[in-house]
This record gives sequence, structure tokens and C-alpha cells, in this order.
Amino acid sequence: MFHKGVIELDTKGEMDIIDITHDVQEIVEESGIENGIVLIFCPGSTGAITTIEYEDGLLYDLPQALEKIAPKNAYYRHEEKWHDGNGHSHVRASIIGPSLTVPIENRRLILGTWQQIVFVECDVRPRRRKIIVHIVG
Amino acid sequence: MFHKGVIELDTKGEMDIIDITHDVQEIVEESGIENGIVLIFCPGSTGAITTIEYEDGLLYDLPQALEKIAPKNAYYRHEEKWHDGNGHSHVRASIIGPSLTVPIENRRLILGTWQQIVFVECDVRPRRRKIIVHIVG
Amino acid sequence: MFHKGVIELDTKGEMDIIDITHDVQEIVEESGIENGIVLIFCPGSTGAITTIEYEDGLLYDLPQALEKIAPKNAYYRHEEKWHDGNGHSHVRASIIGPSLTVPIENRRLILGTWQQIVFVECDVRPRRRKIIVHIVG
Repeated sequence: MFHKGVIELDTKGEMDIIDITHDVQEIVEESGIENGIVLIFCPGSTGAITTIEYEDGLLYDLPQALEKIAPKNAYYRHEEKWHDGNGHSHVRASIIGPSLTVPIENRRLILGTWQQIVFVECDVRPRRRKIIVHIVG
Repeated sequence: MFHKGVIELDTKGEMDIIDITHDVQEIVEESGIENGIVLIFCPGSTGAITTIEYEDGLLYDLPQALEKIAPKNAYYRHEEKWHDGNGHSHVRASIIGPSLTVPIENRRLILGTWQQIVFVECDVRPRRRKIIVHIVG
Repeated sequence: MFHKGVIELDTKGEMDIIDITHDVQEIVEESGIENGIVLIFCPGSTGAITTIEYEDGLLYDLPQALEKIAPKNAYYRHEEKWHDGNGHSHVRASIIGPSLTVPIENRRLILGTWQQIVFVECDVRPRRRKIIVHIVG
């Protein structure tokens, strides 16, 4: 069995981290698929999907770590092509990754109590994003 | 076809890295599914799943790299909410990620000779963990 | 429905980043599966799969970030076992991860306009790699 859905987001710009757990759960419920797996995917090279405990502190802490890995104000050769100031955005998104797969049982996402599915906007400006949700079971 | 299993672990605390390859392989065999994919997922925001060559040296080296990304003794705003000293744990787990998907052929995991599936305990204390294994084929 | 394929690569050595999007798309087309998900997996603990905008600048920038996380010339305890100078390769591959899952609709990969699927050679020498592609739909 297969079902698909799309989540549309308007992000506020760099390091906007958006909890999409409820949206994914809704697509799982409408699918009618009892057991299986759900893929959450960002089509775009400056956005990433992961899980986190969605609370204000960590929404500050995760970007701090990404700043260590790929600092905003360092030199990026990517700039020489596009001059859009988002070399660090691409690098951060590639390291976290654009895809997450979560198990489904009895039409429910299996997640920890304090674990939410999030989209991480790595780009430097507000973006309209379409997150793809594919369920196989 | 769909099959599910659970792997229960008692971790020793921070940066305990546990080889769960054999447990996943057992669930694959009992599934009767010849070909497909298997999702290994940690429900919890301070644990991560990846692969590594499971030998003592790398069990020291991987934590060293995570210490660079999210040092244990740095300031985390997460502390202001919970005061449980695990801000770095959350950040590390979000960057590695809670899910891994591995191909199955002829009821066998397709892995490299020196590649094992591991659970990485990022939390600061011993935890009982249930790792979810979902097979679709 | 299930279909599998293999992509064979000869890499040039450390931080060779190879665009395999077209190869994956070909396997998707020959599968006859209209809708579903495709797993791209590296069997091997010193290779990784992710997505990136495939342009020369980022092929320089991503390795720079990996050098921050796991510097080539740092001490790795892994060396004490194998003396093959690739401790950093293992650590980098474990953090990016060996698996990527991408949605398929109407026999097409769903990717962003500037987003390519890449294999990242983290090992220190040229390698022959077999990348496993499994489609479920």
C-alpha cells in the first residue's frame, strides 16, 4: 500500500526550525495504512529534516552547533558561483540530511514522548517549502 | 509485506555505542521477507542510529568528533528548562539522526564487511531503550 | 512491489563526491514502480550518501566542514588497530550516514531543482564502490 501527502511551509529564514509532527500524523491517519514506514523528505538543497525535543532552548542550541560545523561568516567557494551568501546553508543541510524515515503502528507515528519531527530552514532568507510525505506499508 | 520487531537495550550512559547488527538480522530472518528495506529507529531525542566499523578505536574517536560539534561543558539554553545537563546530547542526536534504513536481499542485511549497525547513547545517564525495527518488502 | 539495482563507482580517493542522481533515476525507470520510495545505501563504513547542489564550490566547501568535525591530521585511536590512516574517514562517514531515502512519483525522483544525490568517498584512497538501490512501492 502507498499513500502520499505534502506539507507546505512558509519559513521565517535562517535557522527557523518548524515542528511538522502533527502534519505528518494527519497524513498518516488519512492514508488508512495501519503499519509501515513514512518518509519525510525536503526537495531542496538548503533544508533538512531531523527530530528534536521541540523547546525554545534547543531551537537556540542546535543552530549554535551548526555554526561550529559551518560558520555563517567563513569563506565558501560556493559564493563565487552564486553570490547569494548561503554556502554555509548548503553544507549544514548536507550534513543533517534531507530525509527522515519514521515507523508507523496502528496509524500512529512511533516517536519518543519528547521527540518531534522538524524541518530545519538552513537558507538565509524566508522560503516557501513543500515537504514530501510518502507512506509505504 | 510488513514485519516489525523491537530491540531492547540497557545502555551504560553517555557515548555507549552498541552493536545491534545481529539483533536486526534476527528480526529480518524471522520476518520471512526475502527482499526489501529495514528501518531501524530510535524513539527518543537523545539517541541516534548509524553505522560504524565496530572496533575499540572508533568507539573512542566518534565521541571525540561529537565533542567538537557539541561540547559537553559548553552553555546550552536547554538547561534553563530542564537542568538535566544533556543539552549537548540532544544536539548530537539531532545531527546524527534517529533513523537508518538498510537494504535486505535473500533475508540478509546488505552491509559492508566492516560495517555494523549501532545505537549511539547520547544521553548522560544509563537508559533503557527500545529500538523499533520495521521491514517493508 | 520491489525492485533493486546496483551502481558501480570507481572513486578518485578522499573527498571525491560523485553525482549519482542519473544512475538512481535510471533504476527507478526500469523498475516500473510508479510511486513509492527509493533507498540509496553504501555498504561500507568509509562512504556516505547525502544530497547537495552539485557545483564545484560546494565540492570544496563540504570537505572543509568535514575537516572541522574530524580533521585528517588529528590523533585517532583507530590507527592503533589498522595503521591505514583513515580514522577520520570512518568518523565522517558515520556522521553523514550511509543511507538516503528519496520519494518517487510517476517514475520520477522527487528532488529540488538544484539538489543532486551524491556518494561521498571518505576513505583516503581510490575505491571501487557498489551502491545499493532498493525501491519499494
